[in-house]
Amino acid sequence: MKLVKTISEVRAEVGRARSSGRSIGLVPTMGFLHEGHLSLADRCCELAGYVVMSIYVNPLQFGPSEDFDEYPRALERDLALAEERGVDLVFAPADRELYPTELTVTVAPRRLADRLCGLSRPGHFEGVLTVVGKLFGIVQPDLAVFGQKDFQQAVLIQKMVIDLDMPVRVEVAPTVREADGIAMSSRNEYLSADERRRALSISRGLAGALRSFRSGERDAAMIGRGVLQTMEEAGGVDVEYVEVVSADDLEPVQQADEETVVVVAARVGTTRLIDNARLGAPDPGLARLL
Amino acid sequence: MKLVKTISEVRAEVGRARSSGRSIGLVPTMGFLHEGHLSLADRCCELAGYVVMSIYVNPLQFGPSEDFDEYPRALERDLALAEERGVDLVFAPADRELYPTELTVTVAPRRLADRLCGLSRPGHFEGVLTVVGKLFGIVQPDLAVFGQKDFQQAVLIQKMVIDLDMPVRVEVAPTVREADGIAMSSRNEYLSADERRRALSISRGLAGALRSFRSGERDAAMIGRGVLQTMEEAGGVDVEYVEVVSADDLEPVQQADEETVVVVAARVGTTRLIDNARLGAPDPGLARLL
Repeated sequence: MKLVKTISEVRAEVGRARSSGRSIGLVPTMGFLHEGHLSLADRCCELAGYVVMSIYVNPLQFGPSEDFDEYPRALERDLALAEERGVDLVFAPADRELYPTELTVTVAPRRLADRLCGLSRPGHFEGVLTVVGKLFGIVQPDLAVFGQKDFQQAVLIQKMVIDLDMPVRVEVAPTVREADGIAMSSRNEYLSADERRRALSISRGLAGALRSFRSGERDAAMIGRGVLQTMEEAGGVDVEYVEVVSADDLEPVQQADEETVVVVAARVGTTRLIDNARLGAPDPGLARLL
Repeated sequence: MKLVKTISEVRAEVGRARSSGRSIGLVPTMGFLHEGHLSLADRCCELAGYVVMSIYVNPLQFGPSEDFDEYPRALERDLALAEERGVDLVFAPADRELYPTELTVTVAPRRLADRLCGLSRPGHFEGVLTVVGKLFGIVQPDLAVFGQKDFQQAVLIQKMVIDLDMPVRVEVAPTVREADGIAMSSRNEYLSADERRRALSISRGLAGALRSFRSGERDAAMIGRGVLQTMEEAGGVDVEYVEVVSADDLEPVQQADEETVVVVAARVGTTRLIDNARLGAPDPGLARLL
């Protein structure tokens, strides 16, 4: 595995791999790798002949009062983990490599970003789409793998690729969970033991939604109410939203079906956590809780 | 030369050309080709082994009260001209091919679009950047050629390529003028004989700016005033702006230098015309007027 820090090195390395006939896969991350990221690398290794992982805490997607500075970083450990999982190239640029001057042009959502996480994080998805667009331009991957945990992000990236005719196939890989059900996230690091216990109500709530759907409940309001109740009963969980939406356009639905997703955001202490469950898809980490 | 109407045909044709080792050039146009467009094709043929021209009147870059419906179209004639000039592939999609669904994500300017043409055409440059971004994604050209006549557009496209790390080299080719100095434009078609005579004051004004700069004038306000005066004296020319700006960031300058551009927009009758002159660059079509 090779580590590079500049765009021109990425292009040289990827160009060599492409010339040798290998397809190129990309796994964009902000580092501090956990099993969630590594499952994306695994999936990418299955699908592509040459796997690039970017490790970059993108300032553009953090609001001024958010956790950019304290976001956990551990490059040395990340490199060891990425190598172990078969990544061929890690791209870990400095800010001045990706943003040498003030941006004049960005990739921006017109729709779907003014709701759910977009409401509390204005500019967040513009930051995400812009950096992902840049990474696509730098790496020119045949495919890129994203996690379902960031569901709204995954939807917007899929829309970006379609709307801008980007020649990249997007794969969305299932959420990986700890044994107790909590969705893996670098931000779990911030939680105290007590907060962590309370945070479990999120995945417990989602597991309840799955159980309810599987036993025949189709009323979206009922399903959402159950999740909310579980979270509120835990105490110390400040719910930002619980919504029951269509997987395609994130619009709230009245009748739940296989394409429905329950999406959740909450603050536990000062830590903002998100999670979701697709009602029609298997989620072994949630199923364990049933 | 081949004509195709779908994205998948473009990708197949370009893929074949690329496999045969040819570099790919793109000339995006809205058709109704004149010598200005054809000079871009010539330049592209010099620089690339396989030349794609897109012919598409992009609805996204027209405002609701603008001339989308009446914009002149002449595909048969365009095809003959493009073939004559060595274009290998024309891509002339229908609207539903490029915009099959409502756009969720666009390429948008954050800066530089709130002035000059952007003031009277809100959303115009978002429409331009989005369609050019799409064409880049569809064709994946090594280089693309744009005309200097649309100066603000050319600057924004260059910024887009830099900011989003698009793997495309952008060439900006000089404005081609009629014998009387008027910059070639499909919209010249709209002008009556009388309007056309009045419109000549635009290029005459710019020629005056060049003369003034070459004889040592460096006061941007003085240079701009001369252009404005020439246009106002013609009568029937409704000046939208005359600005003396930096070629790099379109910011107004006080002292003109080789990197300064005089940019102009005016309405003659109902026709909106734009033009510009780089004070440090040769412009044979304007020099002829001196």
